[in-house]
Amino acid sequence: MSTLSDQPTVPYDPPADVPSVDVDWLGRYLLGQWADERLATRDAIRNNPQLHRVDGLGMDEHRERVLHQLGILVEEGAVHRAFPKYVGGSENHGGNIASFEELVLADPSLQIKSGVQWGLFGSAVMHLGTEEHHRRLLPAIMSLEVPGAFAMTETGHGSDVSSIGTTATYDPETEEFVVHTPFRAAWKDYLGNAALHGKAATVFAQLITGGVNHGVHCFYVPLRDDEGHFLPGIGGEDDGLKGGLNGIDNGRLHFDHVRIPRTNLLNRYGDVAPDGTYSSPIESPGRRFFTMLGTLVQGRVSLDGSATLAAKLALHVAITYATQRRQFPGAGSEEVVLLDYQRHQRRLLPRLAQTYAMSFAHEDFLEVFDGVFSGRKASDDDRQDLETIAAALKPLSTWAALDILQEAREACGGAGFLAQNRVAQLRADLDIYVTFEGDNNVLLQLVAKRLLGDYAKRFKKADAATMARYVAGQFGSSALDRSGLRQVGQRVADFGSTARSVGQVRDAAAQRQLLTDRVETMVAELAGRLRAASKLDPVAGQKLFNENQNELLEAARAHGELLQWESFTAAVDRVEHPGTKQVLTWLRDLFGLGLIERNAAWYLIHGRLSGQRAQAITDYIDDRLLPRLRPHALDLVAAFRLEPEHVRAEIASGAEQQRQDEARAYYAELEASGLAPVPEKKSGAQR
Amino acid sequence: MSTLSDQPTVPYDPPADVPSVDVDWLGRYLLGQWADERLATRDAIRNNPQLHRVDGLGMDEHRERVLHQLGILVEEGAVHRAFPKYVGGSENHGGNIASFEELVLADPSLQIKSGVQWGLFGSAVMHLGTEEHHRRLLPAIMSLEVPGAFAMTETGHGSDVSSIGTTATYDPETEEFVVHTPFRAAWKDYLGNAALHGKAATVFAQLITGGVNHGVHCFYVPLRDDEGHFLPGIGGEDDGLKGGLNGIDNGRLHFDHVRIPRTNLLNRYGDVAPDGTYSSPIESPGRRFFTMLGTLVQGRVSLDGSATLAAKLALHVAITYATQRRQFPGAGSEEVVLLDYQRHQRRLLPRLAQTYAMSFAHEDFLEVFDGVFSGRKASDDDRQDLETIAAALKPLSTWAALDILQEAREACGGAGFLAQNRVAQLRADLDIYVTFEGDNNVLLQLVAKRLLGDYAKRFKKADAATMARYVAGQFGSSALDRSGLRQVGQRVADFGSTARSVGQVRDAAAQRQLLTDRVETMVAELAGRLRAASKLDPVAGQKLFNENQNELLEAARAHGELLQWESFTAAVDRVEHPGTKQVLTWLRDLFGLGLIERNAAWYLIHGRLSGQRAQAITDYIDDRLLPRLRPHALDLVAAFRLEPEHVRAEIASGAEQQRQDEARAYYAELEASGLAPVPEKKSGAQR
Repeated sequence: MSTLSDQPTVPYDPPADVPSVDVDWLGRYLLGQWADERLATRDAIRNNPQLHRVDGLGMDEHRERVLHQLGILVEEGAVHRAFPKYVGGSENHGGNIASFEELVLADPSLQIKSGVQWGLFGSAVMHLGTEEHHRRLLPAIMSLEVPGAFAMTETGHGSDVSSIGTTATYDPETEEFVVHTPFRAAWKDYLGNAALHGKAATVFAQLITGGVNHGVHCFYVPLRDDEGHFLPGIGGEDDGLKGGLNGIDNGRLHFDHVRIPRTNLLNRYGDVAPDGTYSSPIESPGRRFFTMLGTLVQGRVSLDGSATLAAKLALHVAITYATQRRQFPGAGSEEVVLLDYQRHQRRLLPRLAQTYAMSFAHEDFLEVFDGVFSGRKASDDDRQDLETIAAALKPLSTWAALDILQEAREACGGAGFLAQNRVAQLRADLDIYVTFEGDNNVLLQLVAKRLLGDYAKRFKKADAATMARYVAGQFGSSALDRSGLRQVGQRVADFGSTARSVGQVRDAAAQRQLLTDRVETMVAELAGRLRAASKLDPVAGQKLFNENQNELLEAARAHGELLQWESFTAAVDRVEHPGTKQVLTWLRDLFGLGLIERNAAWYLIHGRLSGQRAQAITDYIDDRLLPRLRPHALDLVAAFRLEPEHVRAEIASGAEQQRQDEARAYYAELEASGLAPVPEKKSGAQR
Repeated sequence: MSTLSDQPTVPYDPPADVPSVDVDWLGRYLLGQWADERLATRDAIRNNPQLHRVDGLGMDEHRERVLHQLGILVEEGAVHRAFPKYVGGSENHGGNIASFEELVLADPSLQIKSGVQWGLFGSAVMHLGTEEHHRRLLPAIMSLEVPGAFAMTETGHGSDVSSIGTTATYDPETEEFVVHTPFRAAWKDYLGNAALHGKAATVFAQLITGGVNHGVHCFYVPLRDDEGHFLPGIGGEDDGLKGGLNGIDNGRLHFDHVRIPRTNLLNRYGDVAPDGTYSSPIESPGRRFFTMLGTLVQGRVSLDGSATLAAKLALHVAITYATQRRQFPGAGSEEVVLLDYQRHQRRLLPRLAQTYAMSFAHEDFLEVFDGVFSGRKASDDDRQDLETIAAALKPLSTWAALDILQEAREACGGAGFLAQNRVAQLRADLDIYVTFEGDNNVLLQLVAKRLLGDYAKRFKKADAATMARYVAGQFGSSALDRSGLRQVGQRVADFGSTARSVGQVRDAAAQRQLLTDRVETMVAELAGRLRAASKLDPVAGQKLFNENQNELLEAARAHGELLQWESFTAAVDRVEHPGTKQVLTWLRDLFGLGLIERNAAWYLIHGRLSGQRAQAITDYIDDRLLPRLRPHALDLVAAFRLEPEHVRAEIASGAEQQRQDEARAYYAELEASGLAPVPEKKSGAQR
């Protein structure tokens, strides 16, 4: 929230007493800059049960319900914020994504289907088309008159878009493109809206004119008539049931020499004249390709935010339950509340810290996104930074969401498995988030490539500069060559050279130093090892890179974690309220020290931590941070501001507390009545 | 396979060339001692599509289908092996479990519903009842005439069975027990067969007679009449949709002063005479309780085996796909096969090694189980060892199965999410395996308790002996006081005192020393820290234990991993065929060194490994083991002997290879025709 970040920072001053969290303030803080848009969506979900997921619908019913829900979103005006003003949008990119993210609370199927319609299909027209396309095509897309598919992925090619097999060959005789699927692996696949509802699609295909392949471009292709029948030459299949998101009609499409007008090429970055002459404002085919794909980064932004929100919901459920459910008699006669067990704290509180880190990092990420998409801060560097942040954060948060949802499920035992408690289904729906809109491992490789590229630039060594080429080769391009490493370098500079010993591992400066140093050192080591690639033939060079691939991705992950930590720390720095600041500082420490603990072997091997210090970190987490945070767990969850209509989980509704109270009252009354049976041990009643 | 373990061991002799695996032999070896029973179930599944899971059934249809499938199992004679010969069984306990485990290949719902009927409901009658009960009740249970529920868990008490709220109060006037649910938290919950099909239940309740509570006992309680209506005083609810296993009608039950004959107490371990006098062959109520529960260990045995089998299926799918699917152009013009990427190897091959470890460990586990349940090797010590092994292995394998299924899902990308490729659904079904039949964290705590108890015994120090009490307290008993630590101690003795340096980290002796040392040292450290508990009041003592709970569970996990490693190593030692032995040795090394790598921080902190050696382990895995194992991945999967009718996943059917071949043929032909479009880069065709 900009109102908050404007305010002065209060210096860190730990209170003598147990601090208290200003939950209301923290709640507003977490909602961030686009709080209004977020709250508008939350209100819509709260007030309209028609938007809620209904368990147990068959696939067909679920798909129909979700289509109907999309209509509600149109009526609510909830989904047009990003579109140009001249077609009725408001060109509010950050707010559009923020609002979209909240839809995960309604039903992930609803969210992703609306993402397909307006975030992918509509966005492709908006970002890859020109004003003529906008005026001609967007109104029907915005109103849902034309539901559409985003036909990029093929059965045979997902992450490697540049190798897709579908062709669009220009025929100057008729001034048409002929869209064609040459073999089974080139069928478009996994497309939302393809199996049933899609009346058109934005189809990615190799643009061929005059015998030259100009690479992947996007075409607007009508699919079905008003009765829902495929148009001539078009065919498809239903992908059928999936592991989740069964409210979406994913399917396959294929094209048998389907003719579309020349003007259906979305021609912002590449055009074909009536005579077949190709032209583009971007000369390099590689750069052109990545520019086109780059407009689609919003998918990754919004998944990062959605995953974070799902994690909040899961922790709301599991932590609420953990403070009410009791298990095993303690030293007194009372049974112990789950969250008082150290193991249970270890299971839930670090994940709570991680969720806060994800939340603050996402807010920063969304701001960068809005800067680029609004044009406020949209240089090539800004765009490429945005890509790197997206490639670093989306994998971390989507994987974390699955981990958190699963731990929440298990922490609720059998109750966690029931649909009525929501968590298991949410996990099933979010499963695909880790491989769509960029497979997580492939995205991390993109980050690693930029880290290496930046490193090479920084040292301006010709042979180091060749390093990035092979990794790039795996993506079919070397267009992306900047990264966050530059910033990392600055950070290291701020704190002097790599520290061999840390005075206090637990202060923010020490955490920063350790986390930054790890990224720096991993990249430098990799760069050193990969330098030899410049002297090798391509096959041997590729082999050398492949032998370091796992570590490359680990470096990328470390970079993403550092970004999260920096955002968390900056967010804590802006807090004024002493109690809130204290508790958030502990939570940030739990996140930061947790990262260091998880990678302790690396720090030990590289002489950055002594064994004693490494052990001290674990002890500090167990003996200090977890007990300190335990009393604030409910407050920290309350600050997520999820209302009962958002949570919709029986065990987080107070029902468990009621059951516990009733049971304890029963035993108390029985004891008081004098009729309680005596335990055998005390009775001597056995023969 | 006993035929194999009889044969002499061939000394380790690495062949100069690439070794080859004798897949056929290895396949038989993996099937183990109860190969015939396993193959009988696999044949039944292969030959009868009626037993296969059908995706997309609604919950109601799925439940009916699974009930029908149970009838097929009765007809096939597949489910009566464990029962007494005098009611038509064959008293083949190991074979019964082996056969049951294979059912996971048909449909986990079918498996678990059959487990409820014959493994829990029927087993309770068999193990907790006496011959009169067997003759009176088992025939109708075996024939499925009486489907039944196993009514132990309550909404308010799962892992802590001894605190359940349901009461069974003896009324000498009528010679009946009055079964009663005193409050909502005491409703029986999550019970298969409770929502719809159950006509009776084995109900666990506090046995009260003459004003004395003799603790939890089991009662046979009729639930529904022939029309499926609840009998008077009985009520219930449907648990509804779940995260998986929706072919099972889980539900809740409650009892309002329901009267059953005195003789419906399953009275093997505790009886009530007509006049209300209680008697038991086991004097200590705690020991009696654990003896009764101990008869139910087979649930844990069979989940360990089922989880291992599910992991095999997942790896069959993912590794098959990984050797056919290509992604991103390599240094040549060919696209690279997924499994040639180092990261992909890192994702799948260590999990393959883990699955082999689980498979061999399970075979040893099943043999111990069969020894106890057949009476061949059934001393108190044997029983308690069995419990410890079960508590150590079931958590590891069920968690591993979820991890492996998820990684397999992700490694297959979007295709992994489709129901037609099976993995996502299997993961959803197996989710609950980690918290039922003993919550994994609670089971590990049981292991830790025994490790401490054994340690205390070994050192015979009075104050050390108190250690186990507090952990035990959390389970409401101190009846279990033996563990595998004794064996661990012997192992350490075999290899001299804890080694501070290891010559060759990669040989078996060094792996054993490192893995064993870690368990030993963790337990000794914990014992030292917990010794102070004897001098504290109960509240402070409990606090001290809780402060070490997380590490206690880590020690238990390390113990379980050591058991897996030992079984794997013993299994490799028995192999004769040089190529097979070589490849399995590499695979065992990958498992063992992988464990050490994962816990490298511990080894470094404790001075067991130098930084250099720790790094050498990672390098050895990446640079040697993964590349060596890569060519054998398909063979190692083929040895699981899963046939197409067991796998039933489109992408593992050869369809992907066909698609790849077709695409490559298309491009080759296009190239040969001279009509292939020229890439823009080479054409100079842009203006």
